[in-house]
Amino acid sequence: MKRLAILGSTGSIGKQTLDVVRAFPKDFRVVGLAARNNLELLASQVQEFRPSVVSCRGSREKMAPILSTGCEACDMEEMAGHHQVDLVMMATVGEAGLGPTLAALQAGKPVALANKEVLVMAGGLVTSLAQKTGVELLPVDSEPSAIWQCLRGEDRRVSRIIITASGGALRGRSIEELARVTPQEALRHPTWRMGQKITIDSATLINKAFEVIEAHWLFDAPWDRIEVVVHPQSIIHSMVEFEDGSVKAQLSPPDMRLPIQYALFYPDRVSNESISRFDPVAVGSLTFEPLDHESFPCFRLALDMAKRGGTWPAALSAADEVAVELVLSGRIGFLEIEKVIKEVLKDHHPVMEPSIDDILDASRWAREQAGRLVEV
Amino acid sequence: MKRLAILGSTGSIGKQTLDVVRAFPKDFRVVGLAARNNLELLASQVQEFRPSVVSCRGSREKMAPILSTGCEACDMEEMAGHHQVDLVMMATVGEAGLGPTLAALQAGKPVALANKEVLVMAGGLVTSLAQKTGVELLPVDSEPSAIWQCLRGEDRRVSRIIITASGGALRGRSIEELARVTPQEALRHPTWRMGQKITIDSATLINKAFEVIEAHWLFDAPWDRIEVVVHPQSIIHSMVEFEDGSVKAQLSPPDMRLPIQYALFYPDRVSNESISRFDPVAVGSLTFEPLDHESFPCFRLALDMAKRGGTWPAALSAADEVAVELVLSGRIGFLEIEKVIKEVLKDHHPVMEPSIDDILDASRWAREQAGRLVEV
Repeated sequence: MKRLAILGSTGSIGKQTLDVVRAFPKDFRVVGLAARNNLELLASQVQEFRPSVVSCRGSREKMAPILSTGCEACDMEEMAGHHQVDLVMMATVGEAGLGPTLAALQAGKPVALANKEVLVMAGGLVTSLAQKTGVELLPVDSEPSAIWQCLRGEDRRVSRIIITASGGALRGRSIEELARVTPQEALRHPTWRMGQKITIDSATLINKAFEVIEAHWLFDAPWDRIEVVVHPQSIIHSMVEFEDGSVKAQLSPPDMRLPIQYALFYPDRVSNESISRFDPVAVGSLTFEPLDHESFPCFRLALDMAKRGGTWPAALSAADEVAVELVLSGRIGFLEIEKVIKEVLKDHHPVMEPSIDDILDASRWAREQAGRLVEV
Repeated sequence: MKRLAILGSTGSIGKQTLDVVRAFPKDFRVVGLAARNNLELLASQVQEFRPSVVSCRGSREKMAPILSTGCEACDMEEMAGHHQVDLVMMATVGEAGLGPTLAALQAGKPVALANKEVLVMAGGLVTSLAQKTGVELLPVDSEPSAIWQCLRGEDRRVSRIIITASGGALRGRSIEELARVTPQEALRHPTWRMGQKITIDSATLINKAFEVIEAHWLFDAPWDRIEVVVHPQSIIHSMVEFEDGSVKAQLSPPDMRLPIQYALFYPDRVSNESISRFDPVAVGSLTFEPLDHESFPCFRLALDMAKRGGTWPAALSAADEVAVELVLSGRIGFLEIEKVIKEVLKDHHPVMEPSIDDILDASRWAREQAGRLVEV
């Protein structure tokens, strides 16, 4: 019986994690639930799972029905290190996951990491802390999970990691077409149903750069050994080529419950009848095409910042978070995401061997800058 | 430095094994070479690799130039158990591999097994002997090698093995078209360059049934957990689905040197610049289609015999060997392979828990029957 804290329980990954818990009631107990704003859903989750601790934002009044079940309120950092917790599912989005991830690692709690911005912003700090404390970082994102599965049982003599990309909602569109795209169109992901932030990030392909960055940190892979290929069917979730040229791929119909379950049960694999299985003949064809750098320049921009290092990727990530919010609220167009990020980065004064505070400062600064740009 | 005996050194797998040895002169020494009839090539291999022992068929006169290098003549069984040998590459074709495989296992020598008829004929005996003596059977065929690689690091909770089939030289043809096929057409394999026997077996798809049988014995997989799917590009060499529904696949351009090298170096993976690598964008598309049981009935016939067990598959395999020879010499047509096999099996009196002698008797009987059928 593993006792879980699920941070971001009302988001897409959080809800699917609870689906997995429902499927295996004897294997998991939910001892902590944290959400940002969706108090209504959180209240119903608390009713169902009866955690010991909850975390949310809201007035005492609004939280009263939740706390009436007898659970205690705490902040996400406390929850991540709580003595009852065996494993932390980090299902938050954006910067919000950074502090709790560090808190969990410091407290010796393994972290199932679905929040990729944590590694984009502070990959070096997070992975070296995990190494120092000897605590496992378990990938949850489908691509790093695929890589992790392919590496299983292999010594790490990897010659190439090939990350697949669906290409997002706007694959195949020209710059001219992208200029007229609505948020609704950018949110129509062809293969995955995910949260809004990651769906827009998939449409700009900045999400794919984030996964390259994740892979770089999680698997200690040099930048020049990580490639991206567009694979519209989202069946092959990633591939690893070993020294001898042999390639392993991990395949499954797109369903986040599989990588979630893999991280929660690792190293076991357990049957879950509600997850559908790969049928090669029904799929018929798995295709590959190159990434379109012209229409989707955010991919290269994000990778360039990650390679520069220091606080550059944190500033980039924060600027992207604001830009995505602005797209979703209709205040800027799709192509302006890149412009907002570039404009913010133009004025960034990086710290090159940053502390966690330097990273949080860079992030805060970039958010303010991005907000200011639009106000003008 | 591993010392190798290569049985079948003048065949397709034998020659490619020597290519691998040439690429890694510090890792391997050839101490034994065995061939059936191609004494000219064997002589040049002996000149180059200077083995301690050789085995071939031929008059003393014809063998004189080979033995003049100072190596000793012996039979394949002796060679397989020779005290200098660390690993036996079983690259023979058909029944010829059975005795030496058993001899190697009895002498405690690991066997890299490219000769699939050994497992078709006597899979139960061979694998239980390997288990009893604690000696490794290392798959060399690309499909079982792929399965073996996918299983690496996983406990064996396998829900399904998916073996891929190129479909052979005659994929897509109707029974009517197959009636007019020449041996040359049946030998024109679309993706693999292999020996004649296996190429014809690929055209009838009996070869794919043999691989199902191989997988059954090598990986202790129940028949109903092994599927075959046609994949004309021969890039995905096979796949394994685990209990949780996650599928792993092994991919590489079709080149037998890779699985050969994997078996020879196992568990290491070593770079070989002369083996080309998978390029997903250049490949473009990996497709899957169902197997055509109507045009290629030998597949089901062979599997049915394997499921019956006893001496059935040995009789089938021997009848197929003769039938393929008859096709190659132009004495029967392509569609008559099935007829010859069926006709032979009609009169077979099986032994159900056969000894190795029972298996060899069944094989000898089936050869004679098949030969007799054509004489009439």
